[in-house]
Amino acid sequence: MTIETQEEPPEIKVYLPRVGITNLKSVAKIEWKGRIYTFIPTFEVAIDLPEEKKGIHMSRLVESITETMSEAVEEEVKKVHTSLEDLALCIIRRIEKKHSHKRAEVWIKSTLILERQTPASGKTSYEPYDVEVGVIKNSDGSIKKVLKVKVIGNTACPHAMANNQGKTHIQRAIAELEIETHFNEDIALEDMIEVVESSFSSPTYTLLKTPDENAVVRRMYENPKFVEDVAREIVYKARNRFKGKIHVKVISHESIHKHDVIAEVWA
Amino acid sequence: MTIETQEEPPEIKVYLPRVGITNLKSVAKIEWKGRIYTFIPTFEVAIDLPEEKKGIHMSRLVESITETMSEAVEEEVKKVHTSLEDLALCIIRRIEKKHSHKRAEVWIKSTLILERQTPASGKTSYEPYDVEVGVIKNSDGSIKKVLKVKVIGNTACPHAMANNQGKTHIQRAIAELEIETHFNEDIALEDMIEVVESSFSSPTYTLLKTPDENAVVRRMYENPKFVEDVAREIVYKARNRFKGKIHVKVISHESIHKHDVIAEVWA
Amino acid sequence: MTIETQEEPPEIKVYLPRVGITNLKSVAKIEWKGRIYTFIPTFEVAIDLPEEKKGIHMSRLVESITETMSEAVEEEVKKVHTSLEDLALCIIRRIEKKHSHKRAEVWIKSTLILERQTPASGKTSYEPYDVEVGVIKNSDGSIKKVLKVKVIGNTACPHAMANNQGKTHIQRAIAELEIETHFNEDIALEDMIEVVESSFSSPTYTLLKTPDENAVVRRMYENPKFVEDVAREIVYKARNRFKGKIHVKVISHESIHKHDVIAEVWA
Amino acid sequence: MTIETQEEPPEIKVYLPRVGITNLKSVAKIEWKGRIYTFIPTFEVAIDLPEEKKGIHMSRLVESITETMSEAVEEEVKKVHTSLEDLALCIIRRIEKKHSHKRAEVWIKSTLILERQTPASGKTSYEPYDVEVGVIKNSDGSIKKVLKVKVIGNTACPHAMANNQGKTHIQRAIAELEIETHFNEDIALEDMIEVVESSFSSPTYTLLKTPDENAVVRRMYENPKFVEDVAREIVYKARNRFKGKIHVKVISHESIHKHDVIAEVWA
Repeated sequence: MTIETQEEPPEIKVYLPRVGITNLKSVAKIEWKGRIYTFIPTFEVAIDLPEEKKGIHMSRLVESITETMSEAVEEEVKKVHTSLEDLALCIIRRIEKKHSHKRAEVWIKSTLILERQTPASGKTSYEPYDVEVGVIKNSDGSIKKVLKVKVIGNTACPHAMANNQGKTHIQRAIAELEIETHFNEDIALEDMIEVVESSFSSPTYTLLKTPDENAVVRRMYENPKFVEDVAREIVYKARNRFKGKIHVKVISHESIHKHDVIAEVWA
Repeated sequence: MTIETQEEPPEIKVYLPRVGITNLKSVAKIEWKGRIYTFIPTFEVAIDLPEEKKGIHMSRLVESITETMSEAVEEEVKKVHTSLEDLALCIIRRIEKKHSHKRAEVWIKSTLILERQTPASGKTSYEPYDVEVGVIKNSDGSIKKVLKVKVIGNTACPHAMANNQGKTHIQRAIAELEIETHFNEDIALEDMIEVVESSFSSPTYTLLKTPDENAVVRRMYENPKFVEDVAREIVYKARNRFKGKIHVKVISHESIHKHDVIAEVWA
Repeated sequence: MTIETQEEPPEIKVYLPRVGITNLKSVAKIEWKGRIYTFIPTFEVAIDLPEEKKGIHMSRLVESITETMSEAVEEEVKKVHTSLEDLALCIIRRIEKKHSHKRAEVWIKSTLILERQTPASGKTSYEPYDVEVGVIKNSDGSIKKVLKVKVIGNTACPHAMANNQGKTHIQRAIAELEIETHFNEDIALEDMIEVVESSFSSPTYTLLKTPDENAVVRRMYENPKFVEDVAREIVYKARNRFKGKIHVKVISHESIHKHDVIAEVWA
Repeated sequence: MTIETQEEPPEIKVYLPRVGITNLKSVAKIEWKGRIYTFIPTFEVAIDLPEEKKGIHMSRLVESITETMSEAVEEEVKKVHTSLEDLALCIIRRIEKKHSHKRAEVWIKSTLILERQTPASGKTSYEPYDVEVGVIKNSDGSIKKVLKVKVIGNTACPHAMANNQGKTHIQRAIAELEIETHFNEDIALEDMIEVVESSFSSPTYTLLKTPDENAVVRRMYENPKFVEDVAREIVYKARNRFKGKIHVKVISHESIHKHDVIAEVWA
């Protein structure tokens, strides 16, 4: 007979709000714009633990992920998940049947590939974006979500440009936009990516033929920006377009320094 | 009119054997055991550059990836790629039409998810494995490939066990098996993973119910191993099963130390 | 004549609370328990930017670091800094003379090496610990600090032990303790490390001769712990010993899984 | 009485050329240009294991590091080590007294901080460089060393410049130079760093006041370079200046792409 050590009282009685599994890679499948899309996200799933219990049953969290995934696999056509947050909520609903808790969180990290047109030759380019979605069920049963996108762009320094007859230093920059909002608030990760990508000196592209490269170069010089400018533009657009608590963080990998520069804002 | 700076003679004349793109994430699709499997690998593609030219045309390498991918997407049913090395070779074949070179390499890194049965309850568990495949076309036209798998397992120390009445320290360990061989040598990544995974004190599982956990615990104590033992067993099995140059590296994240221990062997 | 683009009004008027430099590695020197101790920390320094200015003068933040360091180097004997937070505050004091701002933050990440005695043979072992110190000056001039330590230890699972006649799975675990408190609150990083290190199934050691290894093995079996137990013990001890807001995060690199388990608590 | 499991014959008899410890952080001290310099490098130490023995005695490798370090600490003035390779060789000499072997390797990774003058204002700037030194004793007793430096600089694209009336894309680039040579060959890491740093479009600086920034901007536009150009210049200079097998790898974090470009050469 199995001893359930987890159910015993612990020596030290402290409520733990977050106990679970992390860095779990598994296969997931969602229906996204009419296509079945398979990918391998990284999961973190956590629930709370009352002060009178020694531990949670970790395997039940894993089962909730695995079963949600195979449900998607088996009934592919009619029941497939339509978004990462839908997937996360399905996992929480399975946990509810398996493990008592007051609060629960599911976080899913993945990479989206979006189709873009290059700026001059109009060729198709596939662009990768790191995204993360968290769904959090509070102890009152209310559900909120956190949506994050991370986009690679660039900055052309306006200060160096003003002091060097139009010449300046340019570099890769990375911006993150995070929105915490109600679960039912309809916000597409693609729209968040668009807000961020359009706020750099120029977007970047995986494929650039010479005319495209020229267009990107011209765009950067016509649109010089500090990290501060990028951060302000993202937060301004995001506030106009999305409802929720906003966090913006821009890091520029300065080409003239060995360190990075950063601008951060909350709204 | 475009100036092709790449075609000009460089100031310093040196042959460069490897020039190209790296850390490029894109979507790929292969047919694997009868199912279309979509994933987002990371690519490195490189060709050589003769000493009389200043640079390669990087965008042609990107196009070779992109076109190979969309070919797979468009003619999904009949022409889809059947393995990572097939995909890599298709990219090399496209480069041949776009850019002169004597040697070419394509490297693809990804994560495979394989289905396993848990050791006692026989439940289905999905296990992630990091894999990398390189295809290298030499200047004589011959083609070789490099296959790598990285597997997470564990070690139970036989020395501590012998000195502590069966008690010992146990820890997560990570083993890599790399095989360099002819392109036509038929070696499945799954078989390489099996060789590595069966050489630890025990395999690990994403999902383990209590009876499964007990089975894994018993297995580890019945099968204590140094990193040296794991390395020897992998190289022994790999030599018997696969033709090619073999490299094995095992790292154990010691539970009693803050550092790791390592064993490495070539065959 | 230099154009100060930073002083111009930006197109979009948004207050930015955090603008600065990050990932800057430099040499630092503190006097620590009577010895001059040189190391190479990583710095992040940020100030706020009012909505009517386009940018901050990044180089003044770098100068504030550089000058604080060389001051320490030059007047080594009498004026050397005595702690990481002292160093961080000196940098803030220099920024005050160089750049207007309402709030300022300095974060310093480093590795401490502490001397330990091995548990049986009493040999000297040098143990590494990742630490981070942040000093934050608020707009009202008040100063708080954030102290973080990250310690490598281990967990021996009490559930597997109860179900396998004393056999269990054991693994490396990593715990972080973070305290946010008044600048003048006297908390030594060494004491925080001690709180964390004593809360695992056993501390780990860089050097272990066979009798020491046996002692650590025995200790782990006598002291089985879930990550939940480790988290509770750290937060319990920290609350009794230190004043401030506490955050504890424990991650266990499960030897029977490919993923990690986590427990987190705030107090 | 202790059982020495390591001395037993293993089930599978395979010679292992590299067995040891890795990712061990400890404090080190060398005398460098007349100053005692303390830092916290990461060590990897490995020896070979004959096919008739089951394992090596890992703790003896750790002791060899620890004792070499404390020797340096205790007799600071007269006996301190003068270089990283001197330190590595001292560790090998200690291993010789503790553990039989035919070959031995010690690898030490660290960060050097070098003093530079900024290009216009002549201010002092402290620049960080990642370095690694390996000392390898072969089975015939001969000793070779491997010296590696990693330097952050930048590239301004000559192709975009030629096609955009002097405008171009610029980005951070990272170059590595590795030299394998006889132990007695006198090569300073600082000289290797100088070779690499002078081969970019421009060196980078931690501190840059506006006139310095202008000088770096001008320098980049006067000196446009592909990664191929940077690689050729490093290998050309290194061949003229240093004796040994040379490996050069340059990665440019393209500001117009999300991926990186790479050039690599051996000489």
